[in-house]
Amino acid sequence: MTIPLRSRFETELRVRPDDLDMNAHVHHSRYFDYVLAARYDQMERCYKMPMQEFLANGFGWVVKTAHLEYKRALGLGELITVRTWVEEFHKDGVKIHFEIIKKGNAKVSCDGWFHFIMTNLKTGRAEAIPDWIIKKYEI
Amino acid sequence: MTIPLRSRFETELRVRPDDLDMNAHVHHSRYFDYVLAARYDQMERCYKMPMQEFLANGFGWVVKTAHLEYKRALGLGELITVRTWVEEFHKDGVKIHFEIIKKGNAKVSCDGWFHFIMTNLKTGRAEAIPDWIIKKYEI
Amino acid sequence: MTIPLRSRFETELRVRPDDLDMNAHVHHSRYFDYVLAARYDQMERCYKMPMQEFLANGFGWVVKTAHLEYKRALGLGELITVRTWVEEFHKDGVKIHFEIIKKGNAKVSCDGWFHFIMTNLKTGRAEAIPDWIIKKYEI
Amino acid sequence: MTIPLRSRFETELRVRPDDLDMNAHVHHSRYFDYVLAARYDQMERCYKMPMQEFLANGFGWVVKTAHLEYKRALGLGELITVRTWVEEFHKDGVKIHFEIIKKGNAKVSCDGWFHFIMTNLKTGRAEAIPDWIIKKYEI
Repeated sequence: MTIPLRSRFETELRVRPDDLDMNAHVHHSRYFDYVLAARYDQMERCYKMPMQEFLANGFGWVVKTAHLEYKRALGLGELITVRTWVEEFHKDGVKIHFEIIKKGNAKVSCDGWFHFIMTNLKTGRAEAIPDWIIKKYEI
Repeated sequence: MTIPLRSRFETELRVRPDDLDMNAHVHHSRYFDYVLAARYDQMERCYKMPMQEFLANGFGWVVKTAHLEYKRALGLGELITVRTWVEEFHKDGVKIHFEIIKKGNAKVSCDGWFHFIMTNLKTGRAEAIPDWIIKKYEI
Repeated sequence: MTIPLRSRFETELRVRPDDLDMNAHVHHSRYFDYVLAARYDQMERCYKMPMQEFLANGFGWVVKTAHLEYKRALGLGELITVRTWVEEFHKDGVKIHFEIIKKGNAKVSCDGWFHFIMTNLKTGRAEAIPDWIIKKYEI
Repeated sequence: MTIPLRSRFETELRVRPDDLDMNAHVHHSRYFDYVLAARYDQMERCYKMPMQEFLANGFGWVVKTAHLEYKRALGLGELITVRTWVEEFHKDGVKIHFEIIKKGNAKVSCDGWFHFIMTNLKTGRAEAIPDWIIKKYEI
């Protein structure tokens, strides 16, 4: 049985001057923020479930694990494409893979994955992802 | 009639590597964050009224105006003293003056002021500062 | 004699999740970064003189004064227009005015000005702006 | 043959208000910045080789891989201890492990590791770590 692949969505971002470190390259921590920005955009635009809707339903997402592999530095004003997709569904979370692509030469700047856990905002604890949310994320 | 001067409080901070810009100087925007960090520290430690207590009483502070004069750049790992004080009380706000001092040579790196407005968290609107809060701030 | 008005240029930006503070509004310091991002974009795209060209010619810009008036908070994912223009030329600097406009309702979120000083990268000191740069900025 | 354990060094930091996200917890990306701040401090204070000395010798460090496991959120003004150590030496890099500890209850907030590569600043390429630097790091 093959696992059906899920859609890979893309968000375009531009490096801001305040993202640069003292070597004029993007701070390693900002790649993390780029992926998060892309997920927020894609939750709303692609999965049709903006973060506000999760919150309104009493759900939140927290990061359990982050893993980033840096390949090529990003510089001032660079345009990037942040591609993300659901690689695995767990009972109470999802594993999101990402690639940050340099628009200039189509090469990978950074890739990796994030393990997000669904939390109940009232209890602050992990919770099984409801079926109706899985359906939205299964595209 | 002379206006009694209010206490000037100090908070010591160290420049973090992620505060640096591509010229290896602290981003101009981070001075703002340093002043805010000092105010939070001093609200709790000096005025004996941490931000959490404002929030618990249904009050918040928003910035109406920020004015910063940059004198000397800050570099990697520098130790700074952030001195702030209440310069003026308004009906619904306070004007806070600040100085950021380089510990190395005791010279001013940046000074200026912030005009904060007190808001009612329920209405989101400006509100007269209650007497009991003015008392805490008048020291 | 009337002073000819200079062009007002616009850059569109979107609020990133990492720009938000604990009240889910954009950190006051990030407005500063938005203006800087717009200036870098407009230096390249509108004045035809990217920051890299200033640096290659041995010039840099430092902020002497920043003044920001906050009118309306910005929230998650908001689209903004950052409009900037040269308000005054000084011997060794320029006064740049800005407006940050909310795309949703065309209202002003923040406005103000920055006084930038031209520096000689070798000496680190202020320097008269060369005529050929003034020409580029006079449009 | 057992590998001798290397020293674990500690740096104390305080969460700044601008580190908080819209849930009033520290942004996941800022943990990364905390570890970096601790390494810079420890390079100078513990290994007796500040970043500036690496640069003066024509060497830089770049991050190849970052892996972070989030255990407990950090809040406004929290005091943390960032403990780091050299877990492995590679020909051209080091694997640095870290733990971020909450001072309040001595529990782990986040742990993980960073794989740093030594680069030659002139060529921009990876380079074998010189013996004299290994000696400094072997303590």
